[in-house]
Order: sequence, then structure tokens, then C-alpha cells
Amino acid sequence: MKSPRYKIVLLGAGNVATHLGLALKKSGQPIVQVYSRQFENAVGLAKKLNCGYTDSIQTIDKTADVYIIAVKDDVVGEIAKLLKLKNKIVVHTSGSVDMNALKTASANYGVFYPLQTFSKSNKVNIKAVPFCLEASNSKTLKSLTFLAENISNNVLEINSEQRKTIHLAAVFACNFSNHMYAIADVLLKANNLSLDILKPLIEETAKKIQHASPVEMQTGPAKRKDKNTMNKHLQLLGNRKEYKKMYRLLSKSIMDLDKQKKN
Amino acid sequence: MKSPRYKIVLLGAGNVATHLGLALKKSGQPIVQVYSRQFENAVGLAKKLNCGYTDSIQTIDKTADVYIIAVKDDVVGEIAKLLKLKNKIVVHTSGSVDMNALKTASANYGVFYPLQTFSKSNKVNIKAVPFCLEASNSKTLKSLTFLAENISNNVLEINSEQRKTIHLAAVFACNFSNHMYAIADVLLKANNLSLDILKPLIEETAKKIQHASPVEMQTGPAKRKDKNTMNKHLQLLGNRKEYKKMYRLLSKSIMDLDKQKKN
Repeated sequence: MKSPRYKIVLLGAGNVATHLGLALKKSGQPIVQVYSRQFENAVGLAKKLNCGYTDSIQTIDKTADVYIIAVKDDVVGEIAKLLKLKNKIVVHTSGSVDMNALKTASANYGVFYPLQTFSKSNKVNIKAVPFCLEASNSKTLKSLTFLAENISNNVLEINSEQRKTIHLAAVFACNFSNHMYAIADVLLKANNLSLDILKPLIEETAKKIQHASPVEMQTGPAKRKDKNTMNKHLQLLGNRKEYKKMYRLLSKSIMDLDKQKKN
Repeated sequence: MKSPRYKIVLLGAGNVATHLGLALKKSGQPIVQVYSRQFENAVGLAKKLNCGYTDSIQTIDKTADVYIIAVKDDVVGEIAKLLKLKNKIVVHTSGSVDMNALKTASANYGVFYPLQTFSKSNKVNIKAVPFCLEASNSKTLKSLTFLAENISNNVLEINSEQRKTIHLAAVFACNFSNHMYAIADVLLKANNLSLDILKPLIEETAKKIQHASPVEMQTGPAKRKDKNTMNKHLQLLGNRKEYKKMYRLLSKSIMDLDKQKKN
């Protein structure tokens, strides 16, 4: 029996569209067209995928099987409203947009959400990326599962409510932790020091929780309730009021969580 | 010419003392004794290092060359005050304690600070750990450099002022980012989801900044100024007031830093 092949149109030409497009193509699926409002972006990605391109919703290829909307969260709904694709599979790749935003585009819609931070320069091991799938019906889910399992070993069915929580948790675990690195960088640079010195520590901190609970792995002055050190740090922060507020709030939160754990 | 050998006494038997002791022994230096107020801890580490042990400051071996105080930050000073070691080398391993806390213990004192988060269960590649050294004189610095370069490829001379900044920056980059993972864990657990789903993302976030600036790598709703998503997240946080405050504060801080970058 031959594996099914799905002709795919990509709507969007950013980081997610690029990584997904390349992975799907590599897995044997034909990408037929890239749409982007920025013509040069459509052309750029289409070249990499060796497929057609357009910057107009009107000329989107209607003969494909799957339409993947990989654009910024706040324009997913806008684009979906312009699509009338009857029974074609239409999905978006967003962590925060409800699946129902696609309801008017087709009877067969869903979510194809890769839970990873993509950037143009970084190579990502897509096999390890969790794909969160949701679909309006079981036939669509089956197709999405087939597509996802051909590019990742980590495919999960996740409903819209769960996906919202996952996306919120990811903001803390990924966006906010990255901002903590950025603040460290600011503090070091102000003293002519480089973030390089902290890089092994940052890597190890992320590695430690791969096999242990982060609450158990917590270290530092707040965890030790070492008020002396915390006061010294607040003093050292001088007139950086925002960072002082953050230091107090996060230290208190570490202590609160530690107390809850012990109770 | 034979390499110098320094007889070493370890004061402390926790994670730092254990990792340092094992690394120094492996590098060919003789560890002669472990001191810990907790007798069983002294015995436990001494067994691993095949050396003597004591739980009394009075019976510390006075014939060694180097005394490494690897105890909690707030007891370094206390222990140092009890030591009268004349010209022996006395160092502590703390990021936040001033070198001068050791002044009364010997004329030759310094800091031997491994910038890493050690835990009993985790294996750390000590060759990559930055060692921040400081000494009361150049002869002592030379000895400390020799000891450190035998266990790590990343040895730096860092004065007390710089070390304070590094320690503060490490609280943000390591302790606070770990707390962000912990909050993600809390939010997911409350919805019967596991942190496992975020682990590839957490690892990638830490990896991305190894070769790029964290400000450049920032992603997420705050970076995009996506107020719609931010409001949805605040709503989703419900009555978790502390986390809401944090979400607002960190999002604002991300936007502020982004603005500064552009100016």
C-alpha cells in the first residue's frame, strides 16, 4: 500500500512556515505553493521548496489537499475569513488561537501546532518537537496525525483549552526565562563583563530540569531564605527600579512555592 | 620539573565541596582532610576522597597547604574567624562573599569560585565550568590559577566587585529562569498536563543564546506587543494574583528593553 500524499499550500513565509515546509517536503509531501503578503518572502520560501508562490489570496491554488496557515497569531483569523475551501483541510499553527477561528474556511479544519521556538539561523531537531494536534473531526485528525508523525516522534492530541494553558506556560518557561538571560546580559554589560561567563550555568540550569522537577532543582538566595544576600543584591541594583521590583517579586514567589511544597 | 602538589583540606561537605574535592583529587592533588559540622557528612565525603575527617575546627590538620571553605554563604565568615592559619592559603568558593572575610585567617587568602550549579545527582563537565579567582597577593593567585587550570579550561581573574555583579546576574539567569520553569510546571499540573511537553522548548531557549544575544532571540506576545494574547493570558491566570503581577511586570520589561534596543 502506498503512503498517502497530501498536496500542501503554505500561507505564511516566516520561521514556522519555513521549518514546517522544509520538514514536510523532506518527509515526501508535495508543497505546491507559498502565499505571503510580502511578495519577496513568498518567492524566497518558494525557491527553497521548489514550488509556486503568490501574494494574493485570490490566486491561491484551490487544487491542494491541505492549507497550513502559519502567520502571526493576530492575523490567523483575518486570513481564515478570506478562505473558502469547502472540504479541504485547513489548519493553523498557533498556540493561542482557537481552532474555531477556521470554521468558516472549511468543514475540515484543525490545529497543527509545533511547540518550539524557531528562528531563521538556528537548526532545530524537528523529530523532537512536540506537535499538538486538534481537528474538527476524526478523519481530519487522522490526516494531521499522519503528516505530523512523518516529521516528529512527539505527536499529541491537545484540545483548545489545554493548548491555551500550554501556550501560557510556554511564555513563562521560554519567553520569560529568555528575558532573565537578557537582564543578566544588561547587568553584566553595565560592568564591562560578558554574558559568556554565565553560559555554562544557563545551559546546565535548563538541562537539570529535563529529568527532575524544577521546584526540587531550585537554588539561590531566595531558596535559602538568605536575606543578607538578597538585600545586597537589591542594593547593587541601585536605581534600576523595575529590576528591583522583579527581584523582590520573584524571590517572594520562590519562597512561597517552597513553602507550598513543604506543606 | 615536577608539578607542584598542594595538600588540601576541604571545609564543607556539600555539593560544591564534593564536586571540587573529586575534581582536585583527580587532577593529582592530595586531599588530606574533610571538615564538616555534621560528622556523618564529613565521613561520607572523606570516604569518597579516601582521606581524613573531623567535625571539630580544633582538630583541623594544620600541615596542609590550601584550605578551601565550601560552605553556605552566610557561614563563610563565621568559619573563617575560627581559623588561624598564618601563611597557609585560605579560600572560599562563594559568589557573594567578599574576599576580605578571610583576612583574619591567613596572610594568603583568596576566592576560588566555580560558576556553576552543582547538585548531588547531576554530573557536571567541570572542564567547562568558569572558575573566578581572586587573591590577596600574586603568589597566592599563581597557586590558585595552577589548581584551577588543572581542573577547568575556563579560569578567570575576577575581583570582588565584578564577582558581586556576576552573582547577581546569575540569580536572574539561573535561579529566576528555573523559577519560570517551576511556574510553568504549576500551571500545567493544575490542568493535568506535564512539563514534559515544554522540555524541548526549554532546552532550545537556553541553547539559542549560546551563540546569539538574548535580546535578539526574544520571542512571544510581549515582544510582538500582542495585547490581545497578553490579555487572554492574564484572564487565564484567574485568581493567581502573584503570577498576574509577574506576567505584567515581565511583559512590560520585555517591551522596555526592546524599545531601548531600537533607540
